[in-house]
Amino acid sequence: MNHETPWLQVPAADIDEQARLDAEERQTRLTKPLGSLGLLEPLACRLAGMQGSATPRVDKVQISIFAGDHGVAAEGISRFPQSVTAEMVRNFARGGAAISVLARSLDAQLEVINLGTVTDTGPLEGVLDVRVGPGTANFVDAPAMDIHQLALAMNAGRHSAERARLAGTELYIAGEMGIGNTTAAAGLACALMGLDPRELAGPGTGLDVAGVSHKADVLRRALAFHRDHLEDPVECLRRLGGFEIAAMSGAYLACAQMGMPIMVDGFISSAAALATARICPSARNWMIFGHASAEPGHRHVLSSLAADPLLDLGMRLGEASGAATAVPLLRLACDLHGRMATFDEAQVSEPD
Amino acid sequence: MNHETPWLQVPAADIDEQARLDAEERQTRLTKPLGSLGLLEPLACRLAGMQGSATPRVDKVQISIFAGDHGVAAEGISRFPQSVTAEMVRNFARGGAAISVLARSLDAQLEVINLGTVTDTGPLEGVLDVRVGPGTANFVDAPAMDIHQLALAMNAGRHSAERARLAGTELYIAGEMGIGNTTAAAGLACALMGLDPRELAGPGTGLDVAGVSHKADVLRRALAFHRDHLEDPVECLRRLGGFEIAAMSGAYLACAQMGMPIMVDGFISSAAALATARICPSARNWMIFGHASAEPGHRHVLSSLAADPLLDLGMRLGEASGAATAVPLLRLACDLHGRMATFDEAQVSEPD
Repeated sequence: MNHETPWLQVPAADIDEQARLDAEERQTRLTKPLGSLGLLEPLACRLAGMQGSATPRVDKVQISIFAGDHGVAAEGISRFPQSVTAEMVRNFARGGAAISVLARSLDAQLEVINLGTVTDTGPLEGVLDVRVGPGTANFVDAPAMDIHQLALAMNAGRHSAERARLAGTELYIAGEMGIGNTTAAAGLACALMGLDPRELAGPGTGLDVAGVSHKADVLRRALAFHRDHLEDPVECLRRLGGFEIAAMSGAYLACAQMGMPIMVDGFISSAAALATARICPSARNWMIFGHASAEPGHRHVLSSLAADPLLDLGMRLGEASGAATAVPLLRLACDLHGRMATFDEAQVSEPD
Repeated sequence: MNHETPWLQVPAADIDEQARLDAEERQTRLTKPLGSLGLLEPLACRLAGMQGSATPRVDKVQISIFAGDHGVAAEGISRFPQSVTAEMVRNFARGGAAISVLARSLDAQLEVINLGTVTDTGPLEGVLDVRVGPGTANFVDAPAMDIHQLALAMNAGRHSAERARLAGTELYIAGEMGIGNTTAAAGLACALMGLDPRELAGPGTGLDVAGVSHKADVLRRALAFHRDHLEDPVECLRRLGGFEIAAMSGAYLACAQMGMPIMVDGFISSAAALATARICPSARNWMIFGHASAEPGHRHVLSSLAADPLLDLGMRLGEASGAATAVPLLRLACDLHGRMATFDEAQVSEPD
């Protein structure tokens, strides 16, 4: 597959360490006890390092939603029928989905990319049709994708990141929609982390205990089938991922290569981010984690990425909704960092 | 004191339970798995009940900062000189403080009320001068306030809430500035909760271990001095509170009486909220908790109020900064609640 995706070898851009250090020094001079703004302080400093700027900004945000269907849905691992993936793509386009509302409220650019729903949506305004196939293969006894499909999906993610870059995006957010994709994300994460599916299979959109147990069994069969081919993270993506997961992983990698800050969403996004970090460890430097999902496996994936997310609101919707909800925190962190007075400017006494 | 503050007896307004139930029913019809937006769902429903509206809004936010100095500062319980209280009042007025920046970013109305700094600031644009005295008395061996000072401070809080109400405020936030006020808040909370100061004394603006231990000793002496007079929460406020803490408590009570939603900030604000809830238990219905402070005693106060705050970012600045940082979460919760499509509207299939 390398000749279709040679760009996977490109390293991530460097962080501007001097800009980060300058920002840390500025934080010591603002009119507040050092550290009293908690995580908002290192967040502003990290953004300063990523953007190479003393006054980082996240005014221009792009949110790209990748949709795709999953062959493993045939195993009965979701409460929702597979037709919902395409129905929700329509809902994104018409502005009725959670992420549509959030993008408007945040004045963020929203794009939707259909990588392969089982049901054809027909042409939809605001939806980019990059259909790789009518859903992946059922990975219980076959690779989810062939090498061409994987390359197309990862390239679709890269193209999304490139469009964002051209538009002057200061923060890139990827989100997903795909009935069955907590199963694919759990399978991928198990393969990457060497964990048993019991650790990572969760209720997704709302399975009961028996449903979660069945989901873990399905994943155990899949991992047994693929067990001799899980050394390479790209191969893990191909065998156990999904079109939208591969696209997100490609988008994250391209963002890191171009030096564009990323905010990662929940469980599925983090599984894609983990694959990216295994393909290119320095890509991790460009990732901010928006929220801890209620999906129980998320904490394992976060831990493997040494990630400390900003929000913990029990959200578990996907669609980039958790990352979007965290955007105002980044904006406020930037405003505080850039606009507060220093002790000198305000003539406020410093501590003894 | 009752003849100066008869309004303390007025109960809180009722929550509109039907509006809350209608909002909960609407949440079941929005195009997402029920519960998948986590705390944002009950938050929107609570706001619906408070505002008696199917589509609650928190567009109009007032932030009132109450400043006052503390006699107990003479015991050496802060790293910052007492002059900083007045210096920070000037910084609020000039727009350089954290809360000044946050209020601008959130398009919130900011007012600053000086209840009694040791240093006179002179007239300042945007600062209301309601000076009750040049700081409280040192409560180690005297009540912090006399009954007239307490009444004036609580009334100043009520007047702030009334101004907010007249301006059409949809969410009221109180914040504070006062060197020494984590000591006063800890003393007040110990008195209200019957806890030892070891549980509630913390580093505040940055005390080391020895400093925290000294602070707890000072509080132990104070609680021993006042021990026979701590049955009545209003008397606790008078003896161990501060001007700004009493004003916040009065503001919270008046908000609850008028039916205006409140977002509580961190440790000091929560101690004031606890006093309010002890004066008038149903006032608790009107309180939303913005964040968990890094000040270690906060968790005890939150627990006593059965409060589950929205953010946990390690913030510990006061000035309403944590509550202000949580405002976008309320706004997004309202946007999602009011603007997402239902399953019917979007023709999306429901779960089996």
